[in-house]
Amino acid sequence: MRKIEVITTEKSEMVNITALVQQVVSDLMPPDGAMTVFVPHTTCGITITENIDADVGLDTLAALDAAVPWKQPFYKHKGGNSAAHIKTSMTGNSISLLIEGGEIQLGIWQGIFLCEFDGPRTRHIWVG
Amino acid sequence: MRKIEVITTEKSEMVNITALVQQVVSDLMPPDGAMTVFVPHTTCGITITENIDADVGLDTLAALDAAVPWKQPFYKHKGGNSAAHIKTSMTGNSISLLIEGGEIQLGIWQGIFLCEFDGPRTRHIWVG
Amino acid sequence: MRKIEVITTEKSEMVNITALVQQVVSDLMPPDGAMTVFVPHTTCGITITENIDADVGLDTLAALDAAVPWKQPFYKHKGGNSAAHIKTSMTGNSISLLIEGGEIQLGIWQGIFLCEFDGPRTRHIWVG
Repeated sequence: MRKIEVITTEKSEMVNITALVQQVVSDLMPPDGAMTVFVPHTTCGITITENIDADVGLDTLAALDAAVPWKQPFYKHKGGNSAAHIKTSMTGNSISLLIEGGEIQLGIWQGIFLCEFDGPRTRHIWVG
Repeated sequence: MRKIEVITTEKSEMVNITALVQQVVSDLMPPDGAMTVFVPHTTCGITITENIDADVGLDTLAALDAAVPWKQPFYKHKGGNSAAHIKTSMTGNSISLLIEGGEIQLGIWQGIFLCEFDGPRTRHIWVG
Repeated sequence: MRKIEVITTEKSEMVNITALVQQVVSDLMPPDGAMTVFVPHTTCGITITENIDADVGLDTLAALDAAVPWKQPFYKHKGGNSAAHIKTSMTGNSISLLIEGGEIQLGIWQGIFLCEFDGPRTRHIWVG
């Protein structure tokens, strides 16, 4: 397993981590098989989405914010960032990927993205 | 790893792919262990849901459409299909399954479904 | 693979299953590698969220209920629990985790939670 650090710069942000994850595969992993990418945070998730037009990520953040508003009269958590926790549960903390010939197998439009929901912060990704 | 093709016929559709995935397990996989089912698209996800009453899948598509409407004034992506991307991030692109005795281990009500959010299209599923 | 039983006591509830999953790792799993935790139900999911303040889980349940209301005029499923199925697809049925030195690798704030969306019921978790 290798631990990667990513520094986010916005309150909400999608960070393309595909190259960072591929580097771990190239350095450490068997050339064929499966792998896990895991985010060890509760206000930051992981997803696969379009790697060309950054507007897709911005639209995703905006739509999640509309579905799960930052303020709700029913939130009880004193941290004030319940929405970030909930969006993390919606995108998830782990993804499973297939590897062939030392390359992560992704569709042509796909990239792996860290989903920052309560930044900016120093975040970590665990790959194994 | 094997690549399977699925042709969808609707704009939004849940396609039961359980038998297709089981066939790959029977053909290729060790009889006991874990596996990954991965969808290499950004407007088409994967989920596990009820395999008996197709109304559950229809209700899921309708509820996701209510939570993430097809048109929103804040969408920026020129492709016009941001909602399909967002719903894909919400259901996810990969699932992990357990295998015993050559059989995918699923609950009695569970089936594996491709979630078409911007069809009809030819879609792919990668199993390994 | 080991099957664990969990008895839920509320209609909607987050149950911390981290210790139960760690026990399986300690008993059965290789000390280093990856694992899958799978929930074989269609109205009960799994997520990773904060393990200290139970209000985070309550806020998550409330926010999912706001995004996917229990009653909608468009629901067709006669079981009357479509919302529970949909929330299960949103949180997912499986997670992938990394293990090192016999310990599940989780962030300091993270716990593994069963998400009961249509209880109370006897639920199962499959770990392998």
